[in-house]
Amino acid sequence: MSNAMDEMFEIERRDSILILRMNRPDRRNAVSQGVWLGLPDLVARINAMDDLRLVVLTSSTPGMFSSGADLVEFKEVGFDVEWSISNQRAVGAALQALAECVHPTLAAIDGPTIGAGAALAIVCDFRIATPGSIFAIPPAKLGIVYPQFATVALVALVGERHARSLLLTARTIAADEAAQMGLIDRIVPDLESGVTAVAADFSSTSPTAVRLLKQSIRRAVNDPTALSDDLVRAAVTSADFREGVHAFIERRPPGFASISGQD
Amino acid sequence: MSNAMDEMFEIERRDSILILRMNRPDRRNAVSQGVWLGLPDLVARINAMDDLRLVVLTSSTPGMFSSGADLVEFKEVGFDVEWSISNQRAVGAALQALAECVHPTLAAIDGPTIGAGAALAIVCDFRIATPGSIFAIPPAKLGIVYPQFATVALVALVGERHARSLLLTARTIAADEAAQMGLIDRIVPDLESGVTAVAADFSSTSPTAVRLLKQSIRRAVNDPTALSDDLVRAAVTSADFREGVHAFIERRPPGFASISGQD
Amino acid sequence: MSNAMDEMFEIERRDSILILRMNRPDRRNAVSQGVWLGLPDLVARINAMDDLRLVVLTSSTPGMFSSGADLVEFKEVGFDVEWSISNQRAVGAALQALAECVHPTLAAIDGPTIGAGAALAIVCDFRIATPGSIFAIPPAKLGIVYPQFATVALVALVGERHARSLLLTARTIAADEAAQMGLIDRIVPDLESGVTAVAADFSSTSPTAVRLLKQSIRRAVNDPTALSDDLVRAAVTSADFREGVHAFIERRPPGFASISGQD
Repeated sequence: MSNAMDEMFEIERRDSILILRMNRPDRRNAVSQGVWLGLPDLVARINAMDDLRLVVLTSSTPGMFSSGADLVEFKEVGFDVEWSISNQRAVGAALQALAECVHPTLAAIDGPTIGAGAALAIVCDFRIATPGSIFAIPPAKLGIVYPQFATVALVALVGERHARSLLLTARTIAADEAAQMGLIDRIVPDLESGVTAVAADFSSTSPTAVRLLKQSIRRAVNDPTALSDDLVRAAVTSADFREGVHAFIERRPPGFASISGQD
Repeated sequence: MSNAMDEMFEIERRDSILILRMNRPDRRNAVSQGVWLGLPDLVARINAMDDLRLVVLTSSTPGMFSSGADLVEFKEVGFDVEWSISNQRAVGAALQALAECVHPTLAAIDGPTIGAGAALAIVCDFRIATPGSIFAIPPAKLGIVYPQFATVALVALVGERHARSLLLTARTIAADEAAQMGLIDRIVPDLESGVTAVAADFSSTSPTAVRLLKQSIRRAVNDPTALSDDLVRAAVTSADFREGVHAFIERRPPGFASISGQD
Repeated sequence: MSNAMDEMFEIERRDSILILRMNRPDRRNAVSQGVWLGLPDLVARINAMDDLRLVVLTSSTPGMFSSGADLVEFKEVGFDVEWSISNQRAVGAALQALAECVHPTLAAIDGPTIGAGAALAIVCDFRIATPGSIFAIPPAKLGIVYPQFATVALVALVGERHARSLLLTARTIAADEAAQMGLIDRIVPDLESGVTAVAADFSSTSPTAVRLLKQSIRRAVNDPTALSDDLVRAAVTSADFREGVHAFIERRPPGFASISGQD
C-alpha cells in the first residue's frame, strides 16, 4: 500500500471478518487524497479474499469515526481548480469501489461522522453506531458540493426528503435522529457485540449469492428497467445453488463454499 | 386455463371484487413454472373484466400464504442452466403482468410469505396481513438471486436499506417489523373485514383514472423524466373526466362507469 | 406580472426571506391556467434576487392553503382535449420551475391542501403545517391523472407505497398522518415561528453551495448514474469555497456573499 494508506488504516483479520480501522487520530481521521486514490486497490485486494463473510470499517480511536475530507489539502494546493475537480473524482471512485465490495460491508461508528467520512459509512451495506455518535454533512457550510456518488447513495438510503434536509442545512444530528431517518440501521451499546451480531447474520448465507444480490440491488437502484440474466446465469451455474436447493429439499442447513462465478 | 393454473387457483367473483385463492396446500402453495407461465394470461383475462373494483390475491388455506417458487423443479431438471434462466424469466414476466393489472390489487396474507411468494404480494398495489404472518426472502440461503423485477419492486416498496437487509441476510421477520418497514400496509385482525375496508376505498373512484394513475406511478418509478401526455389524453377524452368535473362543480358524488380509454 | 398572477399572489420581502401569499379566497386559492403559465416567469425573477435565503409559499387566508387546479376552466372550454393537454403541460412546467428555484423553498401550510395545490407544496424543498391542515390528491375521483412531474415528486417525497395509497384512493389525510408518511416535515403550532425556525437553518450556509446541492439532489433522483463535474467546477471556482475552507481551518464562522457561479 501507499504511505497514505499505511498511515490511514490498520487491518486486522479475525476469522472470516476483516476489520479496517481508520488510524489518523491527530487529524481526527480526515481522509487525504492519497487515501481516496488508494482505496480502490485496497478494495480490490479485499475482493480477492474469497473466504470473508464481512468487512468492517471502523476507527482505532474511541469517540471518533471520521471528520471527513482533508480540507487543508485544498488550501495547500492554492485552491487549484483542476486539482479540486480531480480530487472530487477520486473521492467518487473510492466510494464506488467500497460500495461495490463483493463482501457485505458494515460501518461500526463511535463518535463524529462528518462529510466524506459519513459517505464512507453511507456506501457500506450496513451501519451500527453507539448512542453518542453524531452526524453531519457540511458542504453547504464549506461552499462545496457533496460527491455525486455520495448524494445518490444518501438519497437511496434515507430518501430524498431527509437527504435534502441534511445536505441543504448542514445540520448536526444525534444517533437517535440518524436511526429514525435510516442513516444508521441500529444503535448498539458497544461496537464489539454489534459487529458480532451482524456477522452472525451471514453465517449461513451463500457468499456467491450475496455477491450477486448486491449487484442486483445496485442495478435496481441505478436502472429499474435493467435485466439480470447474467446474474441468474452466474447463480445457477454455481456450486452454492445446487447445495442450497439440495439442503432445502433435504431439510438440512446448507454448507456453502467460497465465492465463485460472475464478476 | 392450464392444469397447473387450475390446480393452483380458486377464483371467486363477489360483486365488484375478484378473489384469487392459492390452493395447493400439500406443497404449501409453492408456485410451479406452469403457474408462472400461466399468470400473464390469467391477468389478461382479469384486465378484460371491466366492472371490477379490486382484485384480491390470497390463500384458501388459513395460516399459509405461499412458500415461494417450487424448488423441487430445479432438481427434477437436473439443474439445467437454460431451464433455470428461462424459469427466472417466466417468474419476472408473471410478476410484471400482476404489477400491471389494470385494477387495484390487494394481497391478503395469513401465514408464511416466502421468497417468490412474497414477490407476488410485493407487486400488488396493497398488502394486509394477520398478526401471525411471517416474511422471508431466502435466495441468499439458496445460492440464487431474486428475480430482478421483484428486487426493483422491493426497493421501491421498502427502500434500498430494508431491501438490502432482507435480501442479503435472508432473515425471517414478523408482521410487526414488516409493517414498520412498509413491506405490508397494515396488520388486520381478520382478512375478511380487511378486504372489505380496502374495497370501500375504491367505491367512489374512477376506474379509468385509477388505471391511468397506476401507469403514471409505474412510469415515475421506472423513469422519473418520462412524460405522460398519452395518459392525460386518455383521461381527458374519457366519460369519467366529464362526470368527475361536473360532479365536483355540482357538489354531488360522481357516478363512474367502467374502464375505458388508453391501454 | 399578468393579471392572473397579480390576483393570485401577494409578495412580501422580509429581510432575506421572500413570502408568496396565495390570495384568491373566494375560489379557495384555486390555481387557474393563467397562474400556471405565469409561474415560470415569477420564479425566474425570484432566482435573480441573489440575496435571498428562503422563499416561502403560503396563503393570505388562515385555514386555507389551496383547493388545487381551477376545475371550472375545464367546463368553460367545453372539455376541449387539446386545451386540457396543454393545461396539464403548463401545470408541469410551473411545478418544475418552482422545484428548480435556486433558493431554498418552504411551503407554510394552514388548512386544506388539495390536488395541484398539494403539488405546489410537494415540489418545495420543505413543508411545515399547522395541526388542523388536511391533505388529499383527488384525481382518481375526478377522472383525471396527476401531473407526471407531481407524481414523480410525490414518489420521491413519501415513497411509492404512500404515493400509491394517496393517488389511487384519493383519500383525505390529517396532518398527523401526513407527517408520519413524510408528506410534511413537521407540524408547527403557528406558521410564523415555524418559518423563522426554518430560515435560521440557512443563516450560515453558502447560497452558492445550496444552489448547487439542490441541482445535485435533483440529478441524483432523476438519474443515479449522472456525473457532477460541472457542479464541482462551479463550487470550487466560487468565492464561497475559499471562504468556507478558510473559515473551517481558522475555526471561525464563514461569511458568505450572494449567489454566483453555475446556472
